[in-house]
Amino acid sequence: MEIDYSKIKVIGFDADDTLWINETYFREAEEKFSALLEGYETKNKIDQELFKMEIKNLELYGYGVKGFMLSMVESALELSNNQVSQQTIEDILNLGKEMLRQPVELLEDVRKVLRKLSGNYRLIVLTKGDLLDQERKLEKSGLSEFFHHVEVLSDKKEENYQHLLDHLEIDVKEFLMIGNSLKSDVLPLIDIGAQAVHVPFHTTWEHEQVKINEGEYKYLKINKLSDILEYLK
Amino acid sequence: MEIDYSKIKVIGFDADDTLWINETYFREAEEKFSALLEGYETKNKIDQELFKMEIKNLELYGYGVKGFMLSMVESALELSNNQVSQQTIEDILNLGKEMLRQPVELLEDVRKVLRKLSGNYRLIVLTKGDLLDQERKLEKSGLSEFFHHVEVLSDKKEENYQHLLDHLEIDVKEFLMIGNSLKSDVLPLIDIGAQAVHVPFHTTWEHEQVKINEGEYKYLKINKLSDILEYLK
Repeated sequence: MEIDYSKIKVIGFDADDTLWINETYFREAEEKFSALLEGYETKNKIDQELFKMEIKNLELYGYGVKGFMLSMVESALELSNNQVSQQTIEDILNLGKEMLRQPVELLEDVRKVLRKLSGNYRLIVLTKGDLLDQERKLEKSGLSEFFHHVEVLSDKKEENYQHLLDHLEIDVKEFLMIGNSLKSDVLPLIDIGAQAVHVPFHTTWEHEQVKINEGEYKYLKINKLSDILEYLK
Repeated sequence: MEIDYSKIKVIGFDADDTLWINETYFREAEEKFSALLEGYETKNKIDQELFKMEIKNLELYGYGVKGFMLSMVESALELSNNQVSQQTIEDILNLGKEMLRQPVELLEDVRKVLRKLSGNYRLIVLTKGDLLDQERKLEKSGLSEFFHHVEVLSDKKEENYQHLLDHLEIDVKEFLMIGNSLKSDVLPLIDIGAQAVHVPFHTTWEHEQVKINEGEYKYLKINKLSDILEYLK
């Protein structure tokens, strides 16, 4: 894929599953949730119903751990036909609190890549989720020094990106976004005339999955973040 | 109080209980919460314990309705010694969802004041709470057109304001903040060298209450938002 990166001046990084591990903790929480409810339904059914509940509540709660906790509680009540024990509700709350307290585990070579790129580009972080939680994770990551700006967005659609680039006075042609979600970090950027790089993470939340036709979108796909150094100097 | 407003170019508005009603809905939710749990404790004790739970969880959840919902669930379990019914947990979730779906009710003369000031000043909104919820409320309020920028902050301390003013390239001497919370909207601004106007709302959350000595801080206190038009032309 030949893409001209010579005009790029600003690079946006997704955070969850691009700079640090995130989805893995949600998967682990879902495992624990289905174990807590195993008396009521099959694991498969529990997984499905929790996912449906999250999607149903997404418009109201938005992304992030707090909404996930509320959806787990609601789903536990529904799946058990209001039979779930009070102790289990307490366990679910603790499970969510654990997620919020989790240390931040950086993905491979993240520091090295950011140090290198920060010399030649303006770097920003664009993430979605709970405001305080994302700020806390950035703080814990020790990566703040590399970024000129951090933005927590309520969603990552074309209009969210367009609005932010306008606000930061970034020319769309000089902007490159790097992230693990094709749906949130790549396609909307191509659609507004920016560039984007896809670095898949081994796990993708079902809601972030998207199907596109071969060749429909022009973007670079790399295996690991440090591969970007071959393209950006 | 003689304060010179001739240098002011940018005015920041708090949103909850400054532009629209908010605390009233929390008070109503607390009433309903204590009614749901009246079999377990006195109303007074329930109020106190819920407040303590919110403060305990504030560092982890931050401000906003989702954290409040999670604290209500946790408090219900604790107050009832895990005896609270599953139906009551469901009722608590619904109570929180109602809050998120509430229409936005503007305070008196808000539109008139913003229309007038927007001709001569750059207006911005500075609020704390859940990102999506605050964005939604601004949208519902129909006031977006008056604002150059909207910022949802995870907290409203000196460093949050300083950081934001730096980012927006606003000279602290040209900035005036207007809000209902002395603790969050007034004192930190005075402390960083900006100006501030206090418009008390009839109800203040206990956590936002603060005591200061007479004359310690120099700010204007007005009875209703439209009074500001006597000072800013």
